[in-house]
Amino acid sequence: MLKVAIDTLGGDFGPKPIIEGVVRALKQKNFTPILVGDEAQIKALLSPENYASVKIVHCTDFIRMEDKASDALRHKESSIYKAVELVKDGQADAVVSAGHSGATMSLATLLIGRIKGISRPAIATFMPSIDHRKTLVLDVGANVDCNADHLFEFGVMGEVYTREHFQTNIKVGLLSNGEEEGKGNEIGKKAFEKLKALESFVGNIEASDLFKKDIDVVVCDGFTGNILLKSSEGAADSIVRMLKKHVMSSLTAKVGGLLMKKALKKLKKEIDYAEYGGAPLLGLKKCAIIAHGKSNTKAIKNAIFQSIEFGEMDISHKIEARLSNLQMTQT
Amino acid sequence: MLKVAIDTLGGDFGPKPIIEGVVRALKQKNFTPILVGDEAQIKALLSPENYASVKIVHCTDFIRMEDKASDALRHKESSIYKAVELVKDGQADAVVSAGHSGATMSLATLLIGRIKGISRPAIATFMPSIDHRKTLVLDVGANVDCNADHLFEFGVMGEVYTREHFQTNIKVGLLSNGEEEGKGNEIGKKAFEKLKALESFVGNIEASDLFKKDIDVVVCDGFTGNILLKSSEGAADSIVRMLKKHVMSSLTAKVGGLLMKKALKKLKKEIDYAEYGGAPLLGLKKCAIIAHGKSNTKAIKNAIFQSIEFGEMDISHKIEARLSNLQMTQT
Repeated sequence: MLKVAIDTLGGDFGPKPIIEGVVRALKQKNFTPILVGDEAQIKALLSPENYASVKIVHCTDFIRMEDKASDALRHKESSIYKAVELVKDGQADAVVSAGHSGATMSLATLLIGRIKGISRPAIATFMPSIDHRKTLVLDVGANVDCNADHLFEFGVMGEVYTREHFQTNIKVGLLSNGEEEGKGNEIGKKAFEKLKALESFVGNIEASDLFKKDIDVVVCDGFTGNILLKSSEGAADSIVRMLKKHVMSSLTAKVGGLLMKKALKKLKKEIDYAEYGGAPLLGLKKCAIIAHGKSNTKAIKNAIFQSIEFGEMDISHKIEARLSNLQMTQT
Repeated sequence: MLKVAIDTLGGDFGPKPIIEGVVRALKQKNFTPILVGDEAQIKALLSPENYASVKIVHCTDFIRMEDKASDALRHKESSIYKAVELVKDGQADAVVSAGHSGATMSLATLLIGRIKGISRPAIATFMPSIDHRKTLVLDVGANVDCNADHLFEFGVMGEVYTREHFQTNIKVGLLSNGEEEGKGNEIGKKAFEKLKALESFVGNIEASDLFKKDIDVVVCDGFTGNILLKSSEGAADSIVRMLKKHVMSSLTAKVGGLLMKKALKKLKKEIDYAEYGGAPLLGLKKCAIIAHGKSNTKAIKNAIFQSIEFGEMDISHKIEARLSNLQMTQT
């Protein structure tokens, strides 16, 4: 049975939604949770039955959001350090954390280690699409400065991950300021050449097409990925707020707004990050899932499911195999 | 009276909306339009009265969207070349074009020339904000690869332009992947240090805060600016489409949707680029306004108003003065 180490201390809302997420996940799937955190707190939040089906690694220290990621390595008593260490030592197969994402990232990279051929692990996240299945974007924040080789590796990792998910032909695109070949910044243009080695590569993709084109993977550096994610989030949020503002300004629209509530609720579900769970850090020898600091019960449950799926699909080995296969055809 | 050279041939919809935009602008403001394009076509679209109040520079050649910007300099017979040349020769004070934006940009830079102290002109565009007046973003496409000096210059130009617009204290932010100092990619971190020389500089700003924070200027390179603009556009468009999809799926929501139509119309007005006109190319000795290829009558009218305002505010000289002032305090 798959063993998942879960950091119960790092989230913005404390251990409650995390433990509740674990309990919900246990109802639906078979796995062994290893809860890292304050034993008394954890016990208080679990029924005796659930208490029997988890393992606990006691600790009370954790990395705060305002701490520097670079200090994480010295905090060997912190919950995220201990959780990642369990994976490193083979006592767990995966780690899920809603804590300091920078700390999780550097600890996972340093302790678990990279797949042979991957120089930079990347955070990959699914974004919703209207007419198409969701699109995986990577990197969305692990590496602010990237070279063409890094972007190429992101393309390979994204291809493998989505192929395992969708079990069909995959289309990989490179985020750019225009569709035509020749668009892009200096690094992007070099990455374009390298990505041609993938049959799945379909060329440049513009940010406006992300939500409508039948694209499965969008490759970008972590800085641009952050801008892409945050501006989409900001624009979507603003549209909904503007709509509400206009609705409140007229009575007929107010009535209309009430009637449309159901539609808005459906919409919210469609764009809710909690539906997606967390974001896997691709490129490591084992699985690390970075959950949102504001994760609720459902988001944690889904992040755990992602880690189980990751193990079942054997993602890390498949990335390694794909890379060595590509190297063979290139030499 | 201010003389504005207008390229009537480059737009996606031909000369009609452009000429109509000029006629509408003439009704509201005093200026002399110099229409560059096919004289017979232009004459057919103007009333005798309007025909008397414009000048025409006849030409039939123009740069097509699929042409390379780098070829524009050799197309001396093209409408955009002739329109920019009028400004260069002092026969016009400003140029407005809805044609090939890359061509407009390179021709304007080469023929009109840069302000002393500006190494790279930048395209600046206003984005809507909910709680605050609109925000100027630059660069949104002129320079895909920038160094820290370029970003600093963008900050100065944005500060001057918005200060003239809003006649109040201005806040300049640097687009980054986090608010804290120390966030950003390598070039961004260097630009942060340089931007400290502006009292108006308030530090890093995240893409998600763009639509809600009281920020007046957002500085970024042209690649990131494109991603920011296009992803906001794509997300906003998707939200509206998703809403429509959900509305169509239930009868009550459908009724609600009808009632909300008015609110949606107001919203559309708020985010419609036509309301903003075009985007000035800041950093040139004279004014060049880049209008959207799909500009309608209203967008052209507003782009012309922008060029008149640009002249009235004497933006180019004020940028030059601000730069030399900054250099004096630094040495």
